[in-house]
Amino acid sequence: MTTTETFVREAISLATRGPSVDPNPRVGCVLVRDGAVIGRGWHRGAGTPHAEIAALADAGDATGATAYVTLEPCAHVGRTGACADALADAGVARVVFAQSDPNPIARGGAEVLRSHGIEVYAGALAGEAAALNAHWTFSVTHGRPWVTWKFAATLDGYSAAADGTSMWITGPQARADVHRLRATAGAIAAGTGTVLADDPQLAVRGSDGEPASHQPLRVIIGEREIPAASRVLDDAAPTVHLRTHDPERVLKELHDRGIHHLFLEGGPTLGAAFVAAGLVDEVVAYLAPTLLGAGSSAVGALGIETLADAVSLRLHDLTRVGDDVRLTYRRK
Amino acid sequence: MTTTETFVREAISLATRGPSVDPNPRVGCVLVRDGAVIGRGWHRGAGTPHAEIAALADAGDATGATAYVTLEPCAHVGRTGACADALADAGVARVVFAQSDPNPIARGGAEVLRSHGIEVYAGALAGEAAALNAHWTFSVTHGRPWVTWKFAATLDGYSAAADGTSMWITGPQARADVHRLRATAGAIAAGTGTVLADDPQLAVRGSDGEPASHQPLRVIIGEREIPAASRVLDDAAPTVHLRTHDPERVLKELHDRGIHHLFLEGGPTLGAAFVAAGLVDEVVAYLAPTLLGAGSSAVGALGIETLADAVSLRLHDLTRVGDDVRLTYRRK
Repeated sequence: MTTTETFVREAISLATRGPSVDPNPRVGCVLVRDGAVIGRGWHRGAGTPHAEIAALADAGDATGATAYVTLEPCAHVGRTGACADALADAGVARVVFAQSDPNPIARGGAEVLRSHGIEVYAGALAGEAAALNAHWTFSVTHGRPWVTWKFAATLDGYSAAADGTSMWITGPQARADVHRLRATAGAIAAGTGTVLADDPQLAVRGSDGEPASHQPLRVIIGEREIPAASRVLDDAAPTVHLRTHDPERVLKELHDRGIHHLFLEGGPTLGAAFVAAGLVDEVVAYLAPTLLGAGSSAVGALGIETLADAVSLRLHDLTRVGDDVRLTYRRK
Repeated sequence: MTTTETFVREAISLATRGPSVDPNPRVGCVLVRDGAVIGRGWHRGAGTPHAEIAALADAGDATGATAYVTLEPCAHVGRTGACADALADAGVARVVFAQSDPNPIARGGAEVLRSHGIEVYAGALAGEAAALNAHWTFSVTHGRPWVTWKFAATLDGYSAAADGTSMWITGPQARADVHRLRATAGAIAAGTGTVLADDPQLAVRGSDGEPASHQPLRVIIGEREIPAASRVLDDAAPTVHLRTHDPERVLKELHDRGIHHLFLEGGPTLGAAFVAAGLVDEVVAYLAPTLLGAGSSAVGALGIETLADAVSLRLHDLTRVGDDVRLTYRRK
C-alpha cells in the first residue's frame, strides 16, 4: 500500500462514522505533515461542518500539510462556506482527493484549490470512496433518487390469494430483512391502495422489534384520501402524501427534498407504473416457498404483449432468508 | 475409519461404476479374507449379474471370506438367482451390508443368510449407501416414482407472454442445465397441450449438443391425439402415450415399467394436476431476470382460495445458472 493509499483509506474509514442516510454525503479527511497525521475530521450530517473544516479544527495549525479527502472539496459557499477556500486559508500545501464531486453545483473545488497555488491529486481509491455514497452519487448524477422496488410473492408470483388474504406471504426473517433494507433508504413509499387495504405503518423496526433511530420519510402516492387514523400517519416518522400517479413527479418532489434512495413497497400497480416508466433501478423480490396457482399478481400490468418486450434485468444477488429467498436485480 | 468402513466404502465406490439410471439399484460388493480383498463386483444394470455374484466370480474361491455389500443381499430368485443363497453356497462366513433392502419382494436376505449359519451385520454407512439409489429407494418404499416438476418462468411467474410467445424464457445455460437434470430421470413427461403447442423433442442432449447415450422414456400425458410427425415420436428415444389425466394412473403405469424418477415438464395444467394430487416431491423452478406483468402463468390453477391453503414447500437449493436462477424445493 502506498502512503497515499494509507491516508486515503484512513479518510474513508473516518467517513463511515457519518450517518449512512443523510441529504449530504459521508466524507472523511486526514491532514498529514512530515508523515504524521495532525488532524482528522468527518462529516456528521446535514447542518454540521464538512469533513475538511472538522479536520482543520482538529489540527489547529495546518500550514504546509497535505489533506487527504474522500471527496473533492466543495467550491460553493453553502451553509458552512467553501472547503476549498478554507483549506487554502489554512495554508494547506497539497490536496489528495478520491472521488471527484459529481454534483454540478458543488463541482470546481480542484480548480479553486489550484488557483490558490495548492497541488491537487485526484482519483486515489475513487471507487471505494464513491461506494461510501452510492445513492448520493447516483442521485446527484441523475437528478433523481435511486429507486428500489421491493415485493413479496409466492414462488408462482402472487402477493395475495384469491380471497384477498396476504398476511403473511413471507416469513419473519424476510420481514426483518425488509426492515433492515428500509433503514438504508431516505424514503419509503406505498400507494394509496395499499395504505387503504393493509394499513401499513411503513416505519423501521430494529431486530428487537423497537422503532429504529433513523426513520425514512414515509411517502403515500396517489390521489385518494387516507383516513386520519391510518398507521402511516402516526408520529413514528414524518409522512408526505403526494397526490399524483406520475413516477417522474414523485421522484422530482423527493429529489427536491434531498432524498437519494426511495424504497418502493406495494402495491402491484404502483410498482408496475415505476417499472413501465423505466424508473426502477433495483428490484428486490422475496419469494416464499409456496404455490397458490391463482390470486393477485405481485407485479401489475406493464402493457407488454410479447416476450421480446419483457423488462430485462440483471441478477445482482440471491440469498436464502429464513424459509424464503431474496433475489436482487439491477437495471441492465 | 474402521476396517468395516474401509471395505464398505470400497463397495460403495464400486457401486458407482454401475448405471445411475436403471430399473435396478447400483450395488457394490467386496470379498475379504485375512484382511485382503480377494474379489470385487458391482452391478452393471438390469439383465446382468448382481454385485455379489460378480464378486464371487472374481474371487474364484470365497470360502471363509467376509462379504461387504452396499445393499442387503436379495433372497428372491429373480433373473439371476438369490444372492443370499449364492453367498452361502460359496462358503462365505460373514456378510456386512449397509442399506437394508426396502423392497418388500426382495426383503429377507439377512434371514436367509443367518439360516445358512452366516454371521450378518447390517447398517454400516447405510445413509451413504442409500444415497447411491435415492430414487430407487423412494420408489420401492412408496410404490411410485419420485416426481420432479420443472418449470421455467419470468420473475413474476409467467411462462409465456400475452401473445403466446415463450421461446426462450430462460437462457442457454439454464436450458443446458435442464438437459443435465433430464439425464438423471427414468422418464420425462409432458402434456398433450405442450406437445401440440411447442413440439418439444423431450430428448437429452449433452453439453456438446449431441444426443446423450442414456435417453429417458418419453411420456405424453393426455387424451388428445399427437401428430405422427411430432418430434417427441422420433427415434431419439422410446415414447409412450398415456391417455389419461390422472396423475395416480400415470405413476402406476410408470412404476410398473421400472421407472423410479419422473421428470415432469410443461405445461401449467399438468404440473398443477400433480401438485394438487400431492404427487410432486420436488419442484425445480428456473426464474429468468425478466418481468412481463401479464401472460400465461407457469403454474396452473390449484383450486386454492385462501393463503392458509397454499401449497407449502421446503427450499432445498438455490443456484445462479447463467443469467437465471434455479430454485429447488422439496415436499415439506
